[in-house]
Amino acid sequence: MDAKTSKQKISPLAPGSFPSMEPVPGVRLASGGCGLKKNGKSDLMFVELADGTTAAGVFTQSLTASAPVQWSRKALRGGVARGLVVNSGGANVFTGPPGLAAVEQTVETAADLLATRPSKIFAASTGVIGEPLAVEKITAALPDFKAALSETDWEAAATAIMTTDTFPKGATRTAKIGGVQVTINGMAKGSGMIHPDMATMLSFLFTDAALPADVLQSLLVATVDRSYNAITIDSDTSTSDTVMLFATGAGAEHQAIQSADDAYLDEFKEALDQVTTDLAQQIVRDGEGASKFITVAVTGAQSNASAKRIAFSIATSPLVKTAIAGEDANWGRIVMAVGKAGEDIDADHLAITIGGVPVALMGGAIPGFDETPVAEHMKGQDISIAVDVGLGPEGEGSATIWTCDLTHGYIDINADYRS
Amino acid sequence: MDAKTSKQKISPLAPGSFPSMEPVPGVRLASGGCGLKKNGKSDLMFVELADGTTAAGVFTQSLTASAPVQWSRKALRGGVARGLVVNSGGANVFTGPPGLAAVEQTVETAADLLATRPSKIFAASTGVIGEPLAVEKITAALPDFKAALSETDWEAAATAIMTTDTFPKGATRTAKIGGVQVTINGMAKGSGMIHPDMATMLSFLFTDAALPADVLQSLLVATVDRSYNAITIDSDTSTSDTVMLFATGAGAEHQAIQSADDAYLDEFKEALDQVTTDLAQQIVRDGEGASKFITVAVTGAQSNASAKRIAFSIATSPLVKTAIAGEDANWGRIVMAVGKAGEDIDADHLAITIGGVPVALMGGAIPGFDETPVAEHMKGQDISIAVDVGLGPEGEGSATIWTCDLTHGYIDINADYRS
Repeated sequence: MDAKTSKQKISPLAPGSFPSMEPVPGVRLASGGCGLKKNGKSDLMFVELADGTTAAGVFTQSLTASAPVQWSRKALRGGVARGLVVNSGGANVFTGPPGLAAVEQTVETAADLLATRPSKIFAASTGVIGEPLAVEKITAALPDFKAALSETDWEAAATAIMTTDTFPKGATRTAKIGGVQVTINGMAKGSGMIHPDMATMLSFLFTDAALPADVLQSLLVATVDRSYNAITIDSDTSTSDTVMLFATGAGAEHQAIQSADDAYLDEFKEALDQVTTDLAQQIVRDGEGASKFITVAVTGAQSNASAKRIAFSIATSPLVKTAIAGEDANWGRIVMAVGKAGEDIDADHLAITIGGVPVALMGGAIPGFDETPVAEHMKGQDISIAVDVGLGPEGEGSATIWTCDLTHGYIDINADYRS
Repeated sequence: MDAKTSKQKISPLAPGSFPSMEPVPGVRLASGGCGLKKNGKSDLMFVELADGTTAAGVFTQSLTASAPVQWSRKALRGGVARGLVVNSGGANVFTGPPGLAAVEQTVETAADLLATRPSKIFAASTGVIGEPLAVEKITAALPDFKAALSETDWEAAATAIMTTDTFPKGATRTAKIGGVQVTINGMAKGSGMIHPDMATMLSFLFTDAALPADVLQSLLVATVDRSYNAITIDSDTSTSDTVMLFATGAGAEHQAIQSADDAYLDEFKEALDQVTTDLAQQIVRDGEGASKFITVAVTGAQSNASAKRIAFSIATSPLVKTAIAGEDANWGRIVMAVGKAGEDIDADHLAITIGGVPVALMGGAIPGFDETPVAEHMKGQDISIAVDVGLGPEGEGSATIWTCDLTHGYIDINADYRS
């Protein structure tokens, strides 16, 4: 299998089709190729946001964060947004002062086109690290993009931000705030260097609800922890992780919201969680080389945080991930991964279930255990692993995370990425 | 490529031959097949140690440590040893009370044969986790092994402890203590689940020097930190990591040693470091699927410990390891790995050198940089990466570690290990 074939083939775990996404009042998008990628491939997304749009964002914790992350983190202090420019085909990371200048040129051009200030324009970039960004291609293309803005261009926009992704990722839900319906649309990209530390590679969420910036930020931080921060593909944390949520307030008027704890927001929070979890799982389903979607649930731990660290120790273990790729229910490697996590456990009461079938109980193999149903489960595309780490009544901590297997496809894609 | 071919093929990074190892007075070995592995393959090593032998050991920090690790940790309290039994073909991990009983039967049988107490017998096991150990095969074989003990059987013994290893690993050095020559012989096994946390998978070191147990333990802890604890293959920490050093005192009489700081030990320490570093590097050279031996040197960090964490962040990154497998000098991924380590760095003064050629300086790519010599270096088998994380005069921390690349061979071996 050569690398190009593997890159172009759609992931076997992909959903059937891109969801039908209704417009979000106050959001207009344009996308297409500006020449950063070869062969005129789509590589630029420009989004116009209605006056009064509030913004929330979480970004990578990496100490070598991209230039656009540095910009957007600063711009977020204002809490308001009028536009967003995202390019693939170049990450603008480790590019020094020219990299920061490239972001400034981008947001200044966009601000002029939208007759606003640069501090209301957000930016994100994805692609190879360390190469200078050909920013003149972006600034030259933006006027035409401005002319092409439309309310309906969601799938094309989600396509423009792809790198090694094999399918565009979108999700949509509606919710009522005090009886008034609002929409949440989201998009995301993967699909390598995924082990989010506060946020995933790139994901943008839009709603027509009217929400103060501080409320929006609280809602985003909470949902990110349950979605993007609960996935891993290869344990490598990106330099460009960015999740942003924009609220245009351009939909039907609803109950005014002052606090993230407001009960009027319950349904909205639920819908937001559904959108972000859907997108996070789509990122895993497009994990580089993935052939299996894996759910790891840990219970009986000292705390939720401890359970999550144990779950990630399992989900990042190359030995566990290759065993699953080989459809081998090698639960001994799960024991190893629990052991190396360094969290409080009771090894004598450890229990492991695969596909709903107990494979180990009370800290040992089950005598006379019939592996047939587990072997059947391993042949499927959705693998479920549940581990109780045995702390009993003291162990109320639990966590669920998602990952994919480690296959030859991952090596193919990543041994050749720059060529 | 099918898995069996890949397992049987000797690593391209293997040394030319097993070293010529002289006897160590006070050490006699026997090895062979006792039926744990299929087809009569060698799977058991029995070592007799002279009366008065002192012992030192470091073991895995895993919370799901193997039954023999639990035994040996306890036995080490006595500081003396008369025997060692090591099997491959079964790790005896997560095997509950029967697993501990299996170790007890093993050491009791060995103790009877050597006319000593079980507490002077050490044990180690390696193989698949979670399967019961067929201990009756070990106890039945030990009397014949006792009859076959010899001073010269080093290569065969190193072969008996192999699992997915493709070559036996031995190293030998001599040193003088107060003008009297002593010998240090060592053996080790790899070659997956290697990211030692205090010790590597299995390694046994023998000397005829006469050293008190507490001195021996200090010497071992120090050398392990510079050797086995400076390698990683796949970031997975074994449940069975064991390094033991035995000193028989059966060689020529030398200056009495009271303290690990004794200047008479300087040459011995140097030789011990050479043996352990040699063995640790051999483990990397036999890393599952390895095609490149990689040295990662980090300088300019806040402390040596910080430099080591950054070096491991680079050496465990699947994106860095697959790029090297693809002979791609993708230094952007090194920037990513430095960033995700979470250690104190100065991104604006980060400098990266590959094969002695600077590829990035002052926090950015080098304008007009000619990649040709670096591309040449990437085609070789020995890859060297040096990163200065830019803390300048404040940054006196440095560390060097060793790893291998991540290839299709790793997936082949590990997707099929139990079948």
